[in-house]
Amino acid sequence: MTAPTRGFPDAEFEARTHNAQALMAEAGLSALLLTTEPEVRYYTGFLTRFWESPTRPWYVVLPESGPPIAVIPSIGAHLMGQTWITDMRTWQSPDYDDDGVGLLADTLREVVPQDGDIGLADAMESHVRMPRADFQALELALQPRRLVSDKQITRRVRMKKSEAEIAKIRFAAGIADRAFARVPDIARPGTSLSTVFRGFQALCLDECADWVPYLAGALDYGGYSDVISPATDAPVQQGHVLMLDTGLVHDGYFCDFDRNFSIGAPSPAVQSAHARLIDATRAGFDAARPGATAADLFQAMHAVATPQGGATDAGRFGHGVGMQLTEWPSIIAADQTELVPGMTLTLEPSVSLDGGRIMVHEENIVIRETGAEWLSAPQDSAIRVLT
Amino acid sequence: MTAPTRGFPDAEFEARTHNAQALMAEAGLSALLLTTEPEVRYYTGFLTRFWESPTRPWYVVLPESGPPIAVIPSIGAHLMGQTWITDMRTWQSPDYDDDGVGLLADTLREVVPQDGDIGLADAMESHVRMPRADFQALELALQPRRLVSDKQITRRVRMKKSEAEIAKIRFAAGIADRAFARVPDIARPGTSLSTVFRGFQALCLDECADWVPYLAGALDYGGYSDVISPATDAPVQQGHVLMLDTGLVHDGYFCDFDRNFSIGAPSPAVQSAHARLIDATRAGFDAARPGATAADLFQAMHAVATPQGGATDAGRFGHGVGMQLTEWPSIIAADQTELVPGMTLTLEPSVSLDGGRIMVHEENIVIRETGAEWLSAPQDSAIRVLT
Repeated sequence: MTAPTRGFPDAEFEARTHNAQALMAEAGLSALLLTTEPEVRYYTGFLTRFWESPTRPWYVVLPESGPPIAVIPSIGAHLMGQTWITDMRTWQSPDYDDDGVGLLADTLREVVPQDGDIGLADAMESHVRMPRADFQALELALQPRRLVSDKQITRRVRMKKSEAEIAKIRFAAGIADRAFARVPDIARPGTSLSTVFRGFQALCLDECADWVPYLAGALDYGGYSDVISPATDAPVQQGHVLMLDTGLVHDGYFCDFDRNFSIGAPSPAVQSAHARLIDATRAGFDAARPGATAADLFQAMHAVATPQGGATDAGRFGHGVGMQLTEWPSIIAADQTELVPGMTLTLEPSVSLDGGRIMVHEENIVIRETGAEWLSAPQDSAIRVLT
Repeated sequence: MTAPTRGFPDAEFEARTHNAQALMAEAGLSALLLTTEPEVRYYTGFLTRFWESPTRPWYVVLPESGPPIAVIPSIGAHLMGQTWITDMRTWQSPDYDDDGVGLLADTLREVVPQDGDIGLADAMESHVRMPRADFQALELALQPRRLVSDKQITRRVRMKKSEAEIAKIRFAAGIADRAFARVPDIARPGTSLSTVFRGFQALCLDECADWVPYLAGALDYGGYSDVISPATDAPVQQGHVLMLDTGLVHDGYFCDFDRNFSIGAPSPAVQSAHARLIDATRAGFDAARPGATAADLFQAMHAVATPQGGATDAGRFGHGVGMQLTEWPSIIAADQTELVPGMTLTLEPSVSLDGGRIMVHEENIVIRETGAEWLSAPQDSAIRVLT
């Protein structure tokens, strides 16, 4: 598979900006203030792993018309200068007297009238990435302008992916598919789980991942008790179930899915649980079409995964995926988000086994006009076996 | 080098808790509310890459005495149950009606008197990782109790590392040293920079990194213009300077340093710049002893790196390192933080070259009673050459 072209044409960022601005007009917002990595990148194309450092804040202001304005540390000027952004205001950060708050307030006062409202993410899955003291100073400096809810505008425009975004997610999923196919090379009886984790990440890189921000997994008999733990040095043993769940990135877009492996022949309970997971995933796939809700997908999978009723601690059976490992919506009974073409989702049912054990399976799909399409390669009922 | 034992004895978490509680008593705080990954992990030992998902909030309450209380999604209960934490309160997240706010408010009302203050990070390098609407609801629910500044208590206790923490950082630095030594195997003329990035991350994993959260680098003639960009597909060519800067992790602790390579014999300007960087780093090392300030280190390096005066856009010449890629303090002229034994720092001078180019060198050190000690292997004046 050929890698999609890196980045996006300017027209893609223009469309994102216009989509948001149309919703801003509806919501009566004069600007959006963006503070987190995915928000900043979505509208500007600013892609860097430098966000790993908590030192510097990064701001983007989306006015009611026209392109976004970047208000950023000067260390990012060269990289931001390569995006479609032309209005960039920088300061040398960290500045212990004023770490960009004055510059940001000036910018917002310039584009927002005195009686204007500025939207800021405030709902679930969001946070404001700026020091709280700076936020309080900004609120004061902007008065009588108000910092209010962004009405989930960025979340809403991000949910529907473009074909270029879908191609990147599909490419990332292909990398993971190929890495999972090579797990027999790195996981043998006696190998420690931490060695398997390191080896699997190296396989992802070898298959063309830019980086591997997320890897979780589990290793236990008859299922596992946890899907978020780091690796221990415990060795792979006959009879174990090994689960690896990766969120790897290509050109800033994630895939997110897992595979289960039985070390030696699976027990009937493990094989049956795996088959039930595959059936549940297929039921979710069949239910995934425009007009259905996230809740419908949950119910379709839940009916198969948990025929006797009851719930698992995981609490959800999938979620959005894209610029982040997990995005809106959640596939839970309470989520009434209506599916539309272009949404990329994970289907992630879980089942309970004896002794408090669980097993989880996950695939990635995209919603099309006529139904769902796989982004990851759907699995057989039979669990993969390592010997 | 043998890997240090994973995790910490309970006594380490008890000491961290007591250190913070002593400062809380001084500051008149009845509790700390912790919301970010390093804050939660520092007091509990809760280590997982699951923070990559923005879906769920995680809370820890540190009361004025006694161990921390975890208020977390049930999906984390099994893992948190393996830490020293015994008081754990969970809810099934995401919950669209109340995603933990009620449970958190109950917990805080239980341990904080009505006239009590609750400290929350609010200064530079911090943010509050919870949805803003939830924060506003929490503030209301806690009245008349107030959410106030944490007076940087967690930042202050984290700055001085224990021997166990230093051992983890030293081990991470050793991994990077060995990976840098193998760069000639993966970077040859004609290799694309993106291939070098993938190969270098694989080397880090092969040398025992748990994961590689950060890699930046640059490739250009006569220095480079940027130290935060992702890799392009541009090929390594004769005459290029290649810079790789990694923040890799072992058992939750980072190293953070870079190495420069000349492809073929370096130009006199590049060789001279590299030698100046090494001299500046050495000047920083010599100045790094208890009682000196971060500003003293900056000035010591600046005098060597920029003898003609002037500044670079990078704005700082190093920083703390540990559970995060970058931590307090910043090595800048304005930072009056006094160095004490146990602080782990990067020394990261930069120099300017013709054509707006820069070069950056970085090492990791720990402050001891008698001065600094290298954690990374200090480099020679001569830049490494790849052929």
